[in-house]
Amino acid sequence: MSCLLLDTIVTMRNRIITLTTDFGYKDPFVAEMKGVILSVNPDVTLVDVTHSIQPQDIEEAAYVIGSSYSYFPAGTIHIVVVDPGVGSERKALVLQAGKHFFVGPDNGVFSHILNKKADDHIHQITEEKYMRPKDSHTFQGRDLFAPVAAWLSKGLPISEFGPSVEDLVTLPIAQPLVTEGRVHGEVIYIDSFGNAIANITRDDLARLGVHYSVEINNKVVRKVQYYAQADENSLSCLVNSSDHLELFVKNGNGAKEFNLTKGFKVTVVK
Amino acid sequence: MSCLLLDTIVTMRNRIITLTTDFGYKDPFVAEMKGVILSVNPDVTLVDVTHSIQPQDIEEAAYVIGSSYSYFPAGTIHIVVVDPGVGSERKALVLQAGKHFFVGPDNGVFSHILNKKADDHIHQITEEKYMRPKDSHTFQGRDLFAPVAAWLSKGLPISEFGPSVEDLVTLPIAQPLVTEGRVHGEVIYIDSFGNAIANITRDDLARLGVHYSVEINNKVVRKVQYYAQADENSLSCLVNSSDHLELFVKNGNGAKEFNLTKGFKVTVVK
Amino acid sequence: MSCLLLDTIVTMRNRIITLTTDFGYKDPFVAEMKGVILSVNPDVTLVDVTHSIQPQDIEEAAYVIGSSYSYFPAGTIHIVVVDPGVGSERKALVLQAGKHFFVGPDNGVFSHILNKKADDHIHQITEEKYMRPKDSHTFQGRDLFAPVAAWLSKGLPISEFGPSVEDLVTLPIAQPLVTEGRVHGEVIYIDSFGNAIANITRDDLARLGVHYSVEINNKVVRKVQYYAQADENSLSCLVNSSDHLELFVKNGNGAKEFNLTKGFKVTVVK
Repeated sequence: MSCLLLDTIVTMRNRIITLTTDFGYKDPFVAEMKGVILSVNPDVTLVDVTHSIQPQDIEEAAYVIGSSYSYFPAGTIHIVVVDPGVGSERKALVLQAGKHFFVGPDNGVFSHILNKKADDHIHQITEEKYMRPKDSHTFQGRDLFAPVAAWLSKGLPISEFGPSVEDLVTLPIAQPLVTEGRVHGEVIYIDSFGNAIANITRDDLARLGVHYSVEINNKVVRKVQYYAQADENSLSCLVNSSDHLELFVKNGNGAKEFNLTKGFKVTVVK
Repeated sequence: MSCLLLDTIVTMRNRIITLTTDFGYKDPFVAEMKGVILSVNPDVTLVDVTHSIQPQDIEEAAYVIGSSYSYFPAGTIHIVVVDPGVGSERKALVLQAGKHFFVGPDNGVFSHILNKKADDHIHQITEEKYMRPKDSHTFQGRDLFAPVAAWLSKGLPISEFGPSVEDLVTLPIAQPLVTEGRVHGEVIYIDSFGNAIANITRDDLARLGVHYSVEINNKVVRKVQYYAQADENSLSCLVNSSDHLELFVKNGNGAKEFNLTKGFKVTVVK
Repeated sequence: MSCLLLDTIVTMRNRIITLTTDFGYKDPFVAEMKGVILSVNPDVTLVDVTHSIQPQDIEEAAYVIGSSYSYFPAGTIHIVVVDPGVGSERKALVLQAGKHFFVGPDNGVFSHILNKKADDHIHQITEEKYMRPKDSHTFQGRDLFAPVAAWLSKGLPISEFGPSVEDLVTLPIAQPLVTEGRVHGEVIYIDSFGNAIANITRDDLARLGVHYSVEINNKVVRKVQYYAQADENSLSCLVNSSDHLELFVKNGNGAKEFNLTKGFKVTVVK
């Protein structure tokens, strides 16, 4: 018996594939993807990021994978399937951004990944031998993206799956507007606690110095360091664990109680 | 050190156990089953098919496992626990259908599996040594089916768990009625996107030739190849990734918007 | 190649980490914890107990982990993050109770664990080298508890993470009141089937002998052995798979139909 065999086993076992979809938790669609992946590579570790992306909300999928992928180890493969255009002419992509790999449709779901990296490699998936023999037009998550991710986890280079492409679809990402002594941003995500996350980062705030105030509807929101410091029943804010400005109500649901929705304006004043 | 040991490790690690239940995601019941399985065989890979089967809906469980099990690799063990008769005289079963194994109650959950295979082997689970010492009358998913699946994953033959049985409970499965130039079917499943799946397959449609029209309430439904081809706000249909006729609304919830429920009649006319 | 290496691999692969949180299934928070864990130890097996604890309901988290942890194998590490005081002065704990390990905040989530064991070892987590470099004040599940659990899974002793502590926060756990020939208890958990679990155990009932009756609102509730024995539409009770008295409606939702909530009084009369 050779050490090589054991090395191969160890390496293969270490590969992680994450899944981000809008398939929900009721239907067997995610399980079918996992079955296909395990049929190609039974040694991967599978991790669900979420399957509760709002149906066909590409923007939400892009935000969620963009904010979470970097917590996984180098070499992790992230499948993102929020794909209203499945079966149409939109491209299927496999890409490398830094030490992470991504597989999914060319519809903007990777907007938050590719904005960050200079050394991205993007390939269109065209090699049919890495797809299921009878690729459906309606479930490429199972018939195309799952097997490609599984083959990728076995060590194939991304160039194996099809030709290099230069451009891909990116969403217009709401950037905060920075004027003299002010940052104008907006809410980009509401989490399941009802906390409202703005597109204003720790870095944006640092430019204003130590003393600044956060305002919505021209009213100042109290700043704290952590949730337990805040008062109940009133809106507070902090810089959250993703380095974004977050509005919340202690032991409550800030978004519901203060009618905060995606796009709600948030201003920071020096 | 022998190669045999390593072979055994590799083989054991490759075994997959899937779980399909109506336990939901709030309570720790599924986790308790997994804890019991991992106590017997810590090397299995566990995959949730779904835990959102409608409570005690045996028919839905039978459809879901029947449509998804074949995407898993040969040798996979599928536990199905939708079991309103738990503790009563209903039998506990372990069975092999082709290269897949199934463990669950004898109440019809395997109806869609056993209709498909000629070489099925069915055994009643009676050997108490493979159950938890204090088998409860109320949670055999944890106390009986989980440990049996775990022991099965270690390589025991299904005959080890009890005597062979000939018959098992099967549900009457709604079959489409094929008359000259027509197929009369019905909706059998609504997925979480609101897509309504009929019991009419690609094969049923092939018998009608290339030119056919799909009708509900005597109105023709537009046929497309994939979702993005359809119009919004109107009902369309396609042959889906499971080879079934599916009614849907693009970017909408077809079942809600058109009051489609299980049993709703669908007719295909040549 | 040495056997030692293989032994290490096998041992490491066997370690299980469970997760119990109130983070829900929509956001990527649980996935971020898993990514951090797998970055430290890619060989662990991860099992979700539940992420549907009512937001910030420490009592429910304590009940759920207390009733389910013992089904996992010896050596399992259980992370519990229901943590309204995150970032405040509340301690972070790692503890050993019997052959199980627990990681989480010192706020009462381990009340049902520590009531049971005489040989508990409790340590405060203070060693920053086992935390993420930039520990946030708002998400210690990801930045502190996840990496500590992962390092623990690699074989470090719990004393490595910080000093031993004597006391920890425990919740007042509702105990049944036993008088001559009577047990006065209350509902402590409603499961997702609508079954209401009381704080009255099989042992409590055994003290009353074989003949006893269960009453709510001074009406006797029918006793059965398993669910299928009961009548539909009326409330029944049994001793459930966790050895607790449970009130239910066959094929129905007992809690909704009979307005049972946490704290509802249940009396057993000899």
